[in-house]
Amino acid sequence: MEEIASYRSHGGTQGVYRHASSATGTEMVFSAFVPDHEEGARLPVVWYLSGLTCTHANVTEKGEYRKACAELGLIFIAPDTSPRGEGVPGDPKGSYDFGLGAGFYVDATQAPYDKNYRMWSYVTEELPALVGAGFPADMARQSIMGHSMGGHGALTMGLRLPERYKGISALAPICAPSRVPFGIKALNGYLGAHPDDWRRHDAVSLIEDGAKASEILVDQGLADEFLEVQLRPELLQAACDAAGINLTLNLREGYGHSYYFISTFMADHLRWHAERLKA
Amino acid sequence: MEEIASYRSHGGTQGVYRHASSATGTEMVFSAFVPDHEEGARLPVVWYLSGLTCTHANVTEKGEYRKACAELGLIFIAPDTSPRGEGVPGDPKGSYDFGLGAGFYVDATQAPYDKNYRMWSYVTEELPALVGAGFPADMARQSIMGHSMGGHGALTMGLRLPERYKGISALAPICAPSRVPFGIKALNGYLGAHPDDWRRHDAVSLIEDGAKASEILVDQGLADEFLEVQLRPELLQAACDAAGINLTLNLREGYGHSYYFISTFMADHLRWHAERLKA
Repeated sequence: MEEIASYRSHGGTQGVYRHASSATGTEMVFSAFVPDHEEGARLPVVWYLSGLTCTHANVTEKGEYRKACAELGLIFIAPDTSPRGEGVPGDPKGSYDFGLGAGFYVDATQAPYDKNYRMWSYVTEELPALVGAGFPADMARQSIMGHSMGGHGALTMGLRLPERYKGISALAPICAPSRVPFGIKALNGYLGAHPDDWRRHDAVSLIEDGAKASEILVDQGLADEFLEVQLRPELLQAACDAAGINLTLNLREGYGHSYYFISTFMADHLRWHAERLKA
Repeated sequence: MEEIASYRSHGGTQGVYRHASSATGTEMVFSAFVPDHEEGARLPVVWYLSGLTCTHANVTEKGEYRKACAELGLIFIAPDTSPRGEGVPGDPKGSYDFGLGAGFYVDATQAPYDKNYRMWSYVTEELPALVGAGFPADMARQSIMGHSMGGHGALTMGLRLPERYKGISALAPICAPSRVPFGIKALNGYLGAHPDDWRRHDAVSLIEDGAKASEILVDQGLADEFLEVQLRPELLQAACDAAGINLTLNLREGYGHSYYFISTFMADHLRWHAERLKA
């Protein structure tokens, strides 16, 4: 693991790191913010999964998470959203919602994507091992959040690995990818035309199929252009209601889908995670 | 004045605006954040002047000012750093420290720059008139801050227009442009080889020549790559000491020159301005 940038910020260190990934067969870049801490301390970790088109850089530059993380003593990890580089196949049509920048946090089974697009394994296995070894991280205290496609990733990882993640939250998540255009395109492309296989990568389906969580926090802007067709929080609400999961769904008048929305509610989410990580 | 973007963020409205400028003879773009406020209220205005290479967008995306401005009830205006567009001459050598993105907040007297590079008039006259007319702004309560080249702009405007600006602060400012390479190149290029004319655009010279301020706030990172050659806060400290100006110079161990530094101390500066704007 190579440090490619390091900045002092908000009473901590914002680093950017590159490493060879066995999961994706490529080099991968991620960012990590580590608050100042006592020698030997191990801090809880919040994973932030980004949305379509993003790298680690978007939230690192625009997310406004460092002040809250420094105050709360949280390490903040921001992975990329797909493998990158020469030889990694993208969308043949060149669109932004599949391929590069659009890994959808699954392990692809379909050629040519199955060789590199293994973001589930990368985010849940390979990168946690690197973080646990390379940072002052208490890997017994992890939680996960994400935005849009990354909200989908946070919800599905949190629901499938409940012992791992002490908190699950999302900003404007794609709640039911197997039922909306972004998700149908991605799941069909990465996992093939086998809708039964998609259910493990769909938060609403996972809950319908019995996945448990005590609580989930979601913020959603009501001026979000993707709300009605792609995000569909009402399906998550219905599934949580039926399953007895305590969903806090904050609907925010006037807010859109961008980092102007994300940055507004970032500190609220981090405080929520901190309470659950320190309980 | 045309609104080209508007986002709800942190309990206010972040807008981006374009207008034809008579000062620069070009179209100009600036951003304005307006906190939610009572009908008919007029809010104080903080001007933020950006550094070399920046447009309005850098601080708008990375400056982390909206939460503090919303809490404090401050309008935040971020102009561009030079005229832009077809026909505006840049640096013949294509460098980043002169010409486009590097207006140095002067009215140029030297051809070919004198036609468009009139950022002093733009920031102190034309844009305030637009802001006063187009926003719920109390133009009797303005203050000014800036970063690097924009710190130079904030210091010189604040020192020359003390009745206008109730507070002057800067992050890593170019304190004495007539004595450092960035400034000598810019002032020579825009104002000609007449060092006496440069003194009105040099904060240290202005103070030496009798400009008054009750107090100035500066934050400076000690890991700033430009500190020793280009910024020289020790010259500002000496001039303020000699003139009886209360300079608070916060030296910040480990911090650099980027928005990771700026965003860390932004809220402190805004609180400092708010105290002076509401007194």
